[in-house]
Amino acid sequence: MLYFNCDYTEGCHPNILRRLEETNLMQTVGYGEDEICASARQKIKAACGREDVDVHFLVGGTQANATVIASLLRPHQGALCPATGHINVHETGAVEATGHKVLPLPASPDGKITAGAVERAVLAQKNDGAFEHIVQPKLVYLSQPTENGGLYSLAELRDIRAVCEKYGLFLFVDGARLGYALAAPKNDVTLADLCDLTDVFYIGGTKVGALFGEAVVFANRAAGEDFRYHIKQRGGMLAKGRLLGIQFDELFTDGLYTAIAKKAVTQALAIAETCKAAGFPLLAESPTNQQFPILPDAALERLAEKYVYSYWARVDGTHSAVRLCTSWATTDENAAALCADLRALGEAFAEPR
Amino acid sequence: MLYFNCDYTEGCHPNILRRLEETNLMQTVGYGEDEICASARQKIKAACGREDVDVHFLVGGTQANATVIASLLRPHQGALCPATGHINVHETGAVEATGHKVLPLPASPDGKITAGAVERAVLAQKNDGAFEHIVQPKLVYLSQPTENGGLYSLAELRDIRAVCEKYGLFLFVDGARLGYALAAPKNDVTLADLCDLTDVFYIGGTKVGALFGEAVVFANRAAGEDFRYHIKQRGGMLAKGRLLGIQFDELFTDGLYTAIAKKAVTQALAIAETCKAAGFPLLAESPTNQQFPILPDAALERLAEKYVYSYWARVDGTHSAVRLCTSWATTDENAAALCADLRALGEAFAEPR
Amino acid sequence: MLYFNCDYTEGCHPNILRRLEETNLMQTVGYGEDEICASARQKIKAACGREDVDVHFLVGGTQANATVIASLLRPHQGALCPATGHINVHETGAVEATGHKVLPLPASPDGKITAGAVERAVLAQKNDGAFEHIVQPKLVYLSQPTENGGLYSLAELRDIRAVCEKYGLFLFVDGARLGYALAAPKNDVTLADLCDLTDVFYIGGTKVGALFGEAVVFANRAAGEDFRYHIKQRGGMLAKGRLLGIQFDELFTDGLYTAIAKKAVTQALAIAETCKAAGFPLLAESPTNQQFPILPDAALERLAEKYVYSYWARVDGTHSAVRLCTSWATTDENAAALCADLRALGEAFAEPR
Amino acid sequence: MLYFNCDYTEGCHPNILRRLEETNLMQTVGYGEDEICASARQKIKAACGREDVDVHFLVGGTQANATVIASLLRPHQGALCPATGHINVHETGAVEATGHKVLPLPASPDGKITAGAVERAVLAQKNDGAFEHIVQPKLVYLSQPTENGGLYSLAELRDIRAVCEKYGLFLFVDGARLGYALAAPKNDVTLADLCDLTDVFYIGGTKVGALFGEAVVFANRAAGEDFRYHIKQRGGMLAKGRLLGIQFDELFTDGLYTAIAKKAVTQALAIAETCKAAGFPLLAESPTNQQFPILPDAALERLAEKYVYSYWARVDGTHSAVRLCTSWATTDENAAALCADLRALGEAFAEPR
Repeated sequence: MLYFNCDYTEGCHPNILRRLEETNLMQTVGYGEDEICASARQKIKAACGREDVDVHFLVGGTQANATVIASLLRPHQGALCPATGHINVHETGAVEATGHKVLPLPASPDGKITAGAVERAVLAQKNDGAFEHIVQPKLVYLSQPTENGGLYSLAELRDIRAVCEKYGLFLFVDGARLGYALAAPKNDVTLADLCDLTDVFYIGGTKVGALFGEAVVFANRAAGEDFRYHIKQRGGMLAKGRLLGIQFDELFTDGLYTAIAKKAVTQALAIAETCKAAGFPLLAESPTNQQFPILPDAALERLAEKYVYSYWARVDGTHSAVRLCTSWATTDENAAALCADLRALGEAFAEPR
Repeated sequence: MLYFNCDYTEGCHPNILRRLEETNLMQTVGYGEDEICASARQKIKAACGREDVDVHFLVGGTQANATVIASLLRPHQGALCPATGHINVHETGAVEATGHKVLPLPASPDGKITAGAVERAVLAQKNDGAFEHIVQPKLVYLSQPTENGGLYSLAELRDIRAVCEKYGLFLFVDGARLGYALAAPKNDVTLADLCDLTDVFYIGGTKVGALFGEAVVFANRAAGEDFRYHIKQRGGMLAKGRLLGIQFDELFTDGLYTAIAKKAVTQALAIAETCKAAGFPLLAESPTNQQFPILPDAALERLAEKYVYSYWARVDGTHSAVRLCTSWATTDENAAALCADLRALGEAFAEPR
Repeated sequence: MLYFNCDYTEGCHPNILRRLEETNLMQTVGYGEDEICASARQKIKAACGREDVDVHFLVGGTQANATVIASLLRPHQGALCPATGHINVHETGAVEATGHKVLPLPASPDGKITAGAVERAVLAQKNDGAFEHIVQPKLVYLSQPTENGGLYSLAELRDIRAVCEKYGLFLFVDGARLGYALAAPKNDVTLADLCDLTDVFYIGGTKVGALFGEAVVFANRAAGEDFRYHIKQRGGMLAKGRLLGIQFDELFTDGLYTAIAKKAVTQALAIAETCKAAGFPLLAESPTNQQFPILPDAALERLAEKYVYSYWARVDGTHSAVRLCTSWATTDENAAALCADLRALGEAFAEPR
Repeated sequence: MLYFNCDYTEGCHPNILRRLEETNLMQTVGYGEDEICASARQKIKAACGREDVDVHFLVGGTQANATVIASLLRPHQGALCPATGHINVHETGAVEATGHKVLPLPASPDGKITAGAVERAVLAQKNDGAFEHIVQPKLVYLSQPTENGGLYSLAELRDIRAVCEKYGLFLFVDGARLGYALAAPKNDVTLADLCDLTDVFYIGGTKVGALFGEAVVFANRAAGEDFRYHIKQRGGMLAKGRLLGIQFDELFTDGLYTAIAKKAVTQALAIAETCKAAGFPLLAESPTNQQFPILPDAALERLAEKYVYSYWARVDGTHSAVRLCTSWATTDENAAALCADLRALGEAFAEPR
């Protein structure tokens, strides 16, 4: 079986494995205070073009989301979030478990929210006669790229940031797949932009070449004060913290992080084109490594004989959307095989339009 | 000004005041373990026709909701609730502050959910490929009557109960205004029915004759084990617990609770009829003490010169819905004055339909 | 039976009952935004000699403690507290339920902590090699008077405040029995001092003349920002908020609050003297309304035939300490009866010393 | 510098690295549902001699502790724990952050509690007149070996278990260093015993040969129901779950786990003997891989020129206790060097006794 169901089906980039071996019996202090972590932090700062940010390494995305959000909010405050956002739908209530309500906003088909929607939500609470009886929106959470493959443009992020500043909200960007955004041909948002526009964001490693790990970047340093306490309290402080340092140090050497992501995006866009050409429309356009084609259920059954995909949503009585992901580890051979089979399915299941 | 904005603008029924005076210098033990509380519990059990339930007194509704829900759920579980439910919109995230996600379901215009919606939500989680990444629905919360004046019929509650039993969910009914449901001409759900159909519900005192207080009835006694610890932990254990006992003991003497509610409902239904006759449609039909007429904004401005109402929702560019409540304390004189003024407004703002 | 077990066995001061009656059918807005609450707030500010403080009314002490503490701390911070402090031992983990560790400090026999103990605890965490793995002390909680009848002097409070300022800690004083401190002959700490020395404290009503209620005073207004959200979220916002206003408005009219407390303290000090004269030593000296004499168990058995006391602690195989409280409601007649019976017991159980 | 400060200064056992390489580009499903995790679970069950247990893999110890405890307790319940226990002192209040009070019990110098202390704590709460105002003890947490190097005997654990059963408490054993207990010559507690005596325990990987990872074993399967939800909610569900499977699969092949631990314990016991012979007494006897000798401060200064140790506690004005750890990775060469230098220090700092 070939796995296109998600972007974490393999291990890590060989450079990381090599470095793990090289450093294996080296002795270092724990908890991320070693020199490899220091080097990795420095490389990330360089990639951001900013010395005045704080970088922390956490093990996973759900952990990073809950830890960051809980560290920023007071008890009566909540996190605005696209209704399709990961914290709202796929983290078993991790944010609520820290005591905060997730405040869902309407999301576009590709998983985005608008500055206008944020402002309307803020004003609705502020102007309500019973405003103190309603959770106070204090943070905007969004993912770049989104869980549905969407990409915010620089202009869109600037608009959202402007609303955040107007009303004193934090802006937090979940970058679990950030590499695939940075590498997308359509993308115009750089790491430096994220530093300028957000209070905090993270650079996902788990899905982009690492075994695991997310690099949280506090552009708003004051907001990140004491963050290491929060990491420890939420169970995210790795004893052998250097493991995270090693991975990000390698990923941020010679542009490896975006290079491997670029290849995956190229493959994904080819798959998208193939789907469309084969008569399988996309649930929404995605310029990144996740594609969501709609196929007849019978075609999906056939596809499942050779490929693993993620079932995404029922579209009508006989069609469903599925998720097909590429990753840094997807081989051109496998991507080509998938495209060929999609073309064949397109012919076999041709439908009058 | 005459207040019709809510049902807690006055103090308490005179019988309660009298009893407070009579007992004022009596010495009793604290925390609800006195003989007056015991008597009140007994009267409530009698009104329910059930000896095998446990009754606890709490100070307020938000406190009762969060305390009950937190006592019943394990950390990964959430509470299904109409999107318009009080715990979802007007309790400053009190349930989330105990660590649990509120899971909103589509609500009817009068604020109700259906057994079908509950079942669909349960199955959607259960059958999701990533089900462990999604909060597990474990409790259904609904209000009788609803926040929007709606009333569940016995048949509707039975259907919801059946789904709860099928999937092992708790059913919790918020009865902050329960008196006005019990007293509604259309109502066919008794206290005994609530004991049969729910795991736990409460009988609201604050809005129905008391100074404050809600009587929580655990029909499912096992579910209520150790509930007094939870009351204490959530700050709801009144030192002079007898104050709650006194109030419910009076309200449940000679049917006072439903008698005073009946009068309020009669007044509210007259207001509703008046609105409709005056050309002001209702946002939704309400058989209880809250009415939600839609008036031209200009008419509302006029109304505000003499009456306090709750602004509810903008309906279109020139019309809004407002809430008009009666309560046990509303005088017939004031209710009649409001009706007369609504009729006059109807004539002044007559609109071609 | 005569109750000396605690200071909340009766209802409220007659002035409050009278005012409840007078205002009963008056219509007001809810949630403490009415004119009676405004008046009560103003009188409390006047009693404090400070216009620049914020006053909020909550229903009970456990609620006030958890709500204040949770509103002030970030997730990784904890509350320093005497080991015998109410939040540490008698609130069913209400503070921990908001996510914060209570950090117990050694307490004196009369329930006090010292500035030195606070400083040592702060430095121990700060200077630990693994400081981020240890809860950060951020708030000092203490009670005036203490749970064991002790009283902080102005000098002691100033020392504690100095340490708090040195290390950026909040100082929060639980005044559940504050009246009995203010009225104690030995006391040299005024309401104005508490405004100067604390960030926040509360004036207990439940135990000093009210049916229920605590007036939280934020001397540090910035720290109290958005506090009404917290009150609502923790279930402490009374719908008929004026009930709290009425009580504090009466208690702070013509010095009623301290006048009624003074009488109780005078009675308590007479009981203390009687105990000592009768050969029953005190567990610790208490200048307030709670006394903790040590009696032979056989004497206690005899005492229990006519009086209710609180069992406090076993002292040795044949002696126990008990708590005897007076309150604003204790009659001189009952206090005299108790003294007479203690004298008689002293003779009956005279022990060679 | 040679590191003896803790047991997580190196990477992992070479077998694990080799397996990471072999499997690196293999495609598997995520979240621990792959075949390698299945194999590792099976090997752990075999090592326990029990098929009827459930095994889950988590990333770290603090995470495992908080996740297990939060999954087992209801809100009003707390965890009994030695005062020196890791959850009480070194997890930044992670347990409290889930809402539960940690209830410290007096610990022996080597970090253990007794069945008697557990029973006394349970009875003190149960028999208190205000028992509902006190957190209900519901779980006993202890570490094998303890944070101070102590080891529970089978008899001691049986006694504690008997008390747990008598009062309906869960028993949870933190085995962050379990390998070093299993490998200690004095040890008489097997994995099978832990399955018999606890509800849940974990087998620490981070400190015993793995890069990271703890294998949580639910001997009480009912108590572990839905545990995967909790893992996800608390941020502990690794996307590439197989990384944990790989590590435990290797550690539980051919007895590797205990073999590598045995070597470390042998080295540690030699260090202990050397200390004592050199005139440096131990804070407490430890039969495991952590040793806590007391040295003159001047000697420690000298030691620090070549070795990294953990400062543990001041003993008197001129002496301190330090922690010296060995681990699976400690070379015989380094251990011998340390012993030689300790002997030399013993001579240089010989003190009249």
